[in-house]
Amino acid sequence: MTAARPKTLLAMGHQVAERLITSRVRDRLAAIADVDPDLVAADFADPAVAGALATAEVLYTSWWCPPVTEDVLAAAPRLRAIVHAAGSVKHHVTEACWQRGILVSSAAAANAEPVAEYTLAAILFANKRVLDLARHYREERTGIDLNGRFPGIGNYRRTVGIVGASRIGRRVIELLRPFELDVLVADPYLREDLGVPRVELDELFERCDVVSVHAPALPETRHLVDAARLARMRDGATLINTARGVLVDQDALIAELASGRLYAVIDVTEPDVLPADSPLYDLPNVLLTPHVAGSLGGEVARLTELALDELERYARGLPFAHGIEAEALATSA
Amino acid sequence: MTAARPKTLLAMGHQVAERLITSRVRDRLAAIADVDPDLVAADFADPAVAGALATAEVLYTSWWCPPVTEDVLAAAPRLRAIVHAAGSVKHHVTEACWQRGILVSSAAAANAEPVAEYTLAAILFANKRVLDLARHYREERTGIDLNGRFPGIGNYRRTVGIVGASRIGRRVIELLRPFELDVLVADPYLREDLGVPRVELDELFERCDVVSVHAPALPETRHLVDAARLARMRDGATLINTARGVLVDQDALIAELASGRLYAVIDVTEPDVLPADSPLYDLPNVLLTPHVAGSLGGEVARLTELALDELERYARGLPFAHGIEAEALATSA
Repeated sequence: MTAARPKTLLAMGHQVAERLITSRVRDRLAAIADVDPDLVAADFADPAVAGALATAEVLYTSWWCPPVTEDVLAAAPRLRAIVHAAGSVKHHVTEACWQRGILVSSAAAANAEPVAEYTLAAILFANKRVLDLARHYREERTGIDLNGRFPGIGNYRRTVGIVGASRIGRRVIELLRPFELDVLVADPYLREDLGVPRVELDELFERCDVVSVHAPALPETRHLVDAARLARMRDGATLINTARGVLVDQDALIAELASGRLYAVIDVTEPDVLPADSPLYDLPNVLLTPHVAGSLGGEVARLTELALDELERYARGLPFAHGIEAEALATSA
Repeated sequence: MTAARPKTLLAMGHQVAERLITSRVRDRLAAIADVDPDLVAADFADPAVAGALATAEVLYTSWWCPPVTEDVLAAAPRLRAIVHAAGSVKHHVTEACWQRGILVSSAAAANAEPVAEYTLAAILFANKRVLDLARHYREERTGIDLNGRFPGIGNYRRTVGIVGASRIGRRVIELLRPFELDVLVADPYLREDLGVPRVELDELFERCDVVSVHAPALPETRHLVDAARLARMRDGATLINTARGVLVDQDALIAELASGRLYAVIDVTEPDVLPADSPLYDLPNVLLTPHVAGSLGGEVARLTELALDELERYARGLPFAHGIEAEALATSA
C-alpha cells in the first residue's frame, strides 16, 4: 500500500533545479509529495542530503542526477521509485536499482516530441532545399532559375527514410502523415505494422531523398551510418542526425559533404561540442546545431508536467503511465 | 451538353510548358481531350495559334499565360472553360471572361499545400530559434549556454498567429494541430469557426511569438503589416511572409530587423527580386528565400494532376471540383 504524499527527494544538477523547480512546480510538488523543494541532491555523498536520502521513498530526478549506485541505495533503505523529469535514465538508474526492484518512470515520451518536431521541419526544408536556395540567393543577389537549376526538388512524392522505430522515429512517422511523402522505416527489432513499408537499412539509404536517424546508441549501432551506407545515398540527398553522434562515421560524412554530393542536418556530433577547426562549422551544405533538438527553454516544462503526473499516480497507488523496464533499455536510448 | 474530348488549347509560357507537359501529362491530355500537346499559346496574337484558338472549347493554362482579353475572346468564339494548372487566375482571367460566363477552375488548392508546408517548417524552426542557434554555434565554436541565453524558446505553449483565413492560412492551422502550440487567427471576413480563437489584427501581433501572413494582395491589404503593427510584436518574435511582398512595409521591417528586435522568414519581397544592396540579404536574423514556398520542382506535378482531374470532370459533363467565381476573387488571392 503506497503512502499518500510520499517522502520525495529532488536529485539533479543545481542549475537544472534552478530552471525546473519553478513556483508552479513547487506548488504541484507540495500538493503531491512530502518534499523540501530547496534541498537538491546534486551529489549523494553530500552530508546535507543524507537525512532526506535515508527517509526518501521517491527520487524525483532530472539532468545531472548522479548515478544511484549500490552505496546510494544502501543509504536510501526506503527508496521505492525514481521519477525522472528528463529523457534517458541510463546515466543514473544503475543495474543495482533494477535488482532491488526500484520502480522507474521516465519523461522520455515528452522529450521525443521536440526532437520529432525539429526533424519534421528539417525534412520539409531539406526536400525543398530551402536553406540551400537561401544561400544561393544571398550569394548571387539576382533572380535564380529555380526549376532549371534545382529540378525535382520539393515535398511531393519524395521518399523519406526513418532509421529506427524508436519513440522518436515513430512520432516522426506520425507527424509525416499529412504530407504527400513516401515514408520508409528500417529497424531490425520492428515487428508491428507502422503503416509504412519496412525495408532493410541498405535499401533505405539507396531509395531515400532524406534519411533521418532515430536509433539508440548501442555498441552494435556505432557507425551505423558508415562510408558504405553514405555512398549508397542518392546525389543531393540529406542525412539528418538528431540521435547521437556516435551513430554516424563523422569523417566519412564530412568527406561526402566536402564533395558537395550530400546535404546534412546535424544536431549531435562526436564530441558533443566540436573542436573549433571542425569542417562541419564551415561546410555550406550542412545545418549544424548545438544539440538543441531535444527539450529546450520552455519545452522542459513538458517533461516536468509529465513527471509530476507520474509522481501523482505513484502517490495515488496507480502504476506509472510511462514506467520503464530494465529489459527494454537494452534496445533503446 | 458538353462534348466528350473537348477541343483544348494549351496556353502558358514556353519554358513552363517544357517543364509541365511531360510524357505522362501528354498521355493523360490525349486520353481526355482533343489537344495538340506541341502547340502552346504563349502569345494569343501568334498566327500559329489562331486556328486552334478559333475552335478551342477549353484553355488549359498555367504560369505566363497571357491575359484572355476581350480581343482574345472574340477570336475564341467556342471557348467555354479555362482550366488553370497553377495558382492565381488574376493575371489571365479578365473581367471579360467572367462577363461571358467562362467557367474557371484553378489548381490553387494544390498550390496552397507547399506554401503551408514551408510555413509549418518555418514556424517550428522559428519558435526554437534553430537557425539563430546554428549561427551562434558557427560563430562561437564552443559550447553555448542555451537555456541561460535563450530562455523560453521552443515549441511548447508558444503562440502562433495566422493573418488571413485564406486557403493557405486554413491549411497552416490544420497542419499545426498535432503540436502543443496556441494558434490565433485574424481575418475580417472569417465567419466560420476554424477551431482556434479569432482575434483582431492588432491583438494578434501583440500576443504571438510567430506571426505568419496569408492574406491576399488587395488595395486594402497594402502594408497591412506596417511599422505600428511591427512595433506591437514581442521582442524576439518572428514574422513570416510567404504571401506577397506588398503586404509588408519592407522598410519598417528592415528597421526592426536591423535593431535585432525581431526575426523574419521572408519568401516574397517588393520587388520580387531584391536589388543587390538590399539589407535583407545580409541581416543575420532573416531567412530570405527567393519566392520558393509555392510549387517548385516536383511539386508542380501536384497542380498538373489536379488540373487534369478538372479537365476530365469537364469532359464528363461534371462541375469543377475547384471552380472559382468572380465574386470570390475580390477577397482572395
